[in-house]
Amino acid sequence: MSHEIDSDASLKEAEDKAEHRLAALRGRNFQIDMTRGKPGREQLDLSNGILTVLTPEDCFGADGDDYRNYGFGTGIPEAKALLGSYMGVRPEQVIAGGNSSLSLMHDTLVGAVLWGVAGGAAPWGEGTKFLCPIPGYDRHFAICERLNIEMINVEMRDDGPDMDAVEAMVAEDPAIKGIWCVPKYSNPTGAIYSDAVVDRLATMESAAADFRVFWDDAYTMHHLTDARPKVKNILEACTAAGHPDRPYMFASTSKIVHPGAGIATLAGSEANIADLAHKMSFQTIGPDKLNQMRHVRFFGNVDGMASHMEKHAAIIGPKFAAVDAALSQNLGGKDMATWKRPLGGYFFSVDLLDGCAAKVVRLAGEAGVTLTPAGATFPYGRDPRDRNLRLAPTLPPIEELRQAMAVFCACVEVVSLRKLNSSA
Amino acid sequence: MSHEIDSDASLKEAEDKAEHRLAALRGRNFQIDMTRGKPGREQLDLSNGILTVLTPEDCFGADGDDYRNYGFGTGIPEAKALLGSYMGVRPEQVIAGGNSSLSLMHDTLVGAVLWGVAGGAAPWGEGTKFLCPIPGYDRHFAICERLNIEMINVEMRDDGPDMDAVEAMVAEDPAIKGIWCVPKYSNPTGAIYSDAVVDRLATMESAAADFRVFWDDAYTMHHLTDARPKVKNILEACTAAGHPDRPYMFASTSKIVHPGAGIATLAGSEANIADLAHKMSFQTIGPDKLNQMRHVRFFGNVDGMASHMEKHAAIIGPKFAAVDAALSQNLGGKDMATWKRPLGGYFFSVDLLDGCAAKVVRLAGEAGVTLTPAGATFPYGRDPRDRNLRLAPTLPPIEELRQAMAVFCACVEVVSLRKLNSSA
Repeated sequence: MSHEIDSDASLKEAEDKAEHRLAALRGRNFQIDMTRGKPGREQLDLSNGILTVLTPEDCFGADGDDYRNYGFGTGIPEAKALLGSYMGVRPEQVIAGGNSSLSLMHDTLVGAVLWGVAGGAAPWGEGTKFLCPIPGYDRHFAICERLNIEMINVEMRDDGPDMDAVEAMVAEDPAIKGIWCVPKYSNPTGAIYSDAVVDRLATMESAAADFRVFWDDAYTMHHLTDARPKVKNILEACTAAGHPDRPYMFASTSKIVHPGAGIATLAGSEANIADLAHKMSFQTIGPDKLNQMRHVRFFGNVDGMASHMEKHAAIIGPKFAAVDAALSQNLGGKDMATWKRPLGGYFFSVDLLDGCAAKVVRLAGEAGVTLTPAGATFPYGRDPRDRNLRLAPTLPPIEELRQAMAVFCACVEVVSLRKLNSSA
Repeated sequence: MSHEIDSDASLKEAEDKAEHRLAALRGRNFQIDMTRGKPGREQLDLSNGILTVLTPEDCFGADGDDYRNYGFGTGIPEAKALLGSYMGVRPEQVIAGGNSSLSLMHDTLVGAVLWGVAGGAAPWGEGTKFLCPIPGYDRHFAICERLNIEMINVEMRDDGPDMDAVEAMVAEDPAIKGIWCVPKYSNPTGAIYSDAVVDRLATMESAAADFRVFWDDAYTMHHLTDARPKVKNILEACTAAGHPDRPYMFASTSKIVHPGAGIATLAGSEANIADLAHKMSFQTIGPDKLNQMRHVRFFGNVDGMASHMEKHAAIIGPKFAAVDAALSQNLGGKDMATWKRPLGGYFFSVDLLDGCAAKVVRLAGEAGVTLTPAGATFPYGRDPRDRNLRLAPTLPPIEELRQAMAVFCACVEVVSLRKLNSSA
C-alpha cells in the first residue's frame, strides 16, 4: 500500500493526527525497556533445568580427571567437543572459556595490542585500524575506541559488508589489521553473510600479513522463523585459501541458557589457539569447568542445543512478527522508515529519514519507551545520517511490546512529519 | 638435637648411606605430584553440596531482580555483602567478579599499563618497576615479566617484607609503581604481615603518586592450626594514612569450594572500584551471577565460610604436620635445610644449602616425586642462591605424602652431602 502525501495541508493534518495519537499514548504512562537484547522471563525459564543438572558424580572426565580441581586451562574436552560442533570446527581448534565471549574478544584485541598475534611481526601499535560494517554492535566498537584503534565505516548489506570496499582498503593499507563480522543474523540488521562474501573475506589479499577477521558468531542457532540459513565456514574457507590464521571465531551460550551463566568459546587455527592459550596462561588458571560440564549434561550434544533453540524461537518469533506487523501497519508505504524482518538474532534495524533517529529516541523516552540511543550502532556513537535505530523486542511481554511499538511508530510519524513540514 | 659431622670419613659415610636409602626409595616407583597447591579429593567432596544448592526460586534479588538475565556488571549485592565480610570491607568497596582472582590481578595490571590507574597522571609505561618480596608466588611474577615490568627482589621475613628496604626504594624511585603482597600465610613461606608492616605500607611516602599495593589475600581463612592470626586491614590503614587508593585487595573462593568454580573479588576505595568497573565495562557484560548466588545459598554468610574452612583444616592440617615431622626427623639438626611450619595457606617453604635446590628437584623427579621447579618462587625464575623449594602437601593422600617426604629428605641429604664432600 502506498500512501501519498501530496499537499502541505494534508502534511500538516497528518502531523496533527500523529501528535494527538502520541499524546494519547503518553497519557498511558508506559515504562517499557527496549534498549538491549535481553531474553524475556519465559526464555529464562527454559533453562532452569541446568541449575541442578550437575551432580557430584558428573564431575569427572572419561579418564577420571576431577573437574572439581585445577587444570584444563583451555577448557574440558567435553565442552570443546560440544562447542566445536556448535561452531563447526574440531575440538582441538576450540578454547572453551569463561562466561563471556565479549571478554574473549576484548582480551584477544588487548593481547594483539600488547604482544601481537600468532605469526605477527610486532604488537598492533599506534595507528592500527579496523573495518566496521555499519550499522553494527556497539560493544565491538567500544573496544576499538578504548584501544585507540581507528574505525573505518563499511556499508553493511543484506549479504554482508560491501566487499569491493573491504578488498580495496585491506589490500592497500597495512595499518588495517582487522574487521568485525557478525556473520549470521548480524547485529542489528539481521544480515546473513553469503558464501561469496565469506569466500572473498577468506581469499582477499591483505597488506597486513597479520590481518584478522573477528568472527562473532553470536547467533548461529538463534533462529526466528523456519528458515535455517547456513553460513559458509570461515575457518575452512580461510584455510583453503592459504590464510588459516585469519579468522578468530567467537560464540557463547549466554542467549541459549542464562545470560552471564553461559560458556564462551574462541575457535581458530592451531597456531592461533596455541598463541591465545599461551596468553591466557598468564591471566587465569582456567575456566569454570563445572559450568562447562553443566552445559554438557544439560544439552547432551549439539542436537540438544538445536532443539533447545527451537523453544526460544517459539517464544520470541511472535514478538518479532508483532514488531514487523506494527511497523507495516503504521509506517508502511509512508516513506518514513525502512526495515527488514530478520530471520534470526535479537534485533530489528530501522532506518528513518535523515536526522530523525535521535529525536525519535528522545520522544519515545518521554512517552515511557526506552530505546537504544541513536548512533549506538555506529563507531564512536556517530550515525552520519542520524537515521538508524535498533529495536530489541525480546524482553517485554508481547502485549507491552505492541504498546511500545505503537509509541515508537507514533514518534516516527511525528518526528518525520515535523521534519517534512518544517522543510515544506 | 644437633648432629655433628666432624670428619671427611663420616661425611663420606653419611653420603653413602643417603645414596643407598634413596636408591631403595627409587626402586619403589613412586608417582607423586607435589608441584602445585591443589586441594585433595576429600577437600573437594566438602563442597559437593554447592553443585545443586541453587534452585530456580533462588535466582532473584531482594528487589525481584532476575539474576538469570543480564545486568549487575560488578556482581550481585548478595555476593558483594558476603565477599565484603570475608575481606573486611563494605559491599560498595567490592567488585564480585568471575572465577579467578588471578584474572582480576592480571587485568588490573594490564589496565594500569594501557590506561593508568584512578587518579594517575598517565599509563604505567616503559620502565615501570615492582617490588617483589622473595620467595613469592610465581604467577604474580609471571604477569610482571609478561608486561615488561622490572621486578626488584625484597627480602621476605616472618612478619612481611623488609620494610626498611621497601620504604627506601619506594620513596626514592617514581618508576616503582607497586608491590606484591600475600599478607596472611604468604605463598610460600607462610609469613603473616605484622600490624607494624601493614602500617608502614600504608603510611610510607611514595615517589610515584599512583603507587599501588597489590594485596592478594588468598588465604585469609585458610588456617592449618588452631591459631587465628589477624592481619590489620590494609584498606582502613591506607585510608587513615591519607592513601585510600593505594591498595587493591584480591581474593577468591577457589580454595574454599572447587578450584575454577569459585568466585573472585577485588576490593578497594570507591575511586578504585569506579575506575576498575569502568575498565571492566568494556570487557564484559558481567560475571556469572548464578554462581555468585550459589555461593550465597551454600554459605549463608561469612560464618558459614569460616566453619567450612574448619573442615578443610581438619583434612590438610595433618598433612602439614606430617611434612614437618618428616623434615624434623630426617633433616633436623643436620644444617642442610631450614623451614618453618606454616599456620595456614598451602605451602611449605624450605631453604637448602646454596646451590642445592635445582639438584634436589631433579633427583626427586627421577625418584618419582615431582616438585615445583627450583627458582619458581623468584622473579624471572631465578633464585640467586638456588636454595629455596616450595612443597605443596595438600594433593597427595597422607600415606603418599609420607613417601614423598622420605624421597625429598633423602634427596636433600644426598645433594647436600655431595656438595659438602666435593668441597671438603
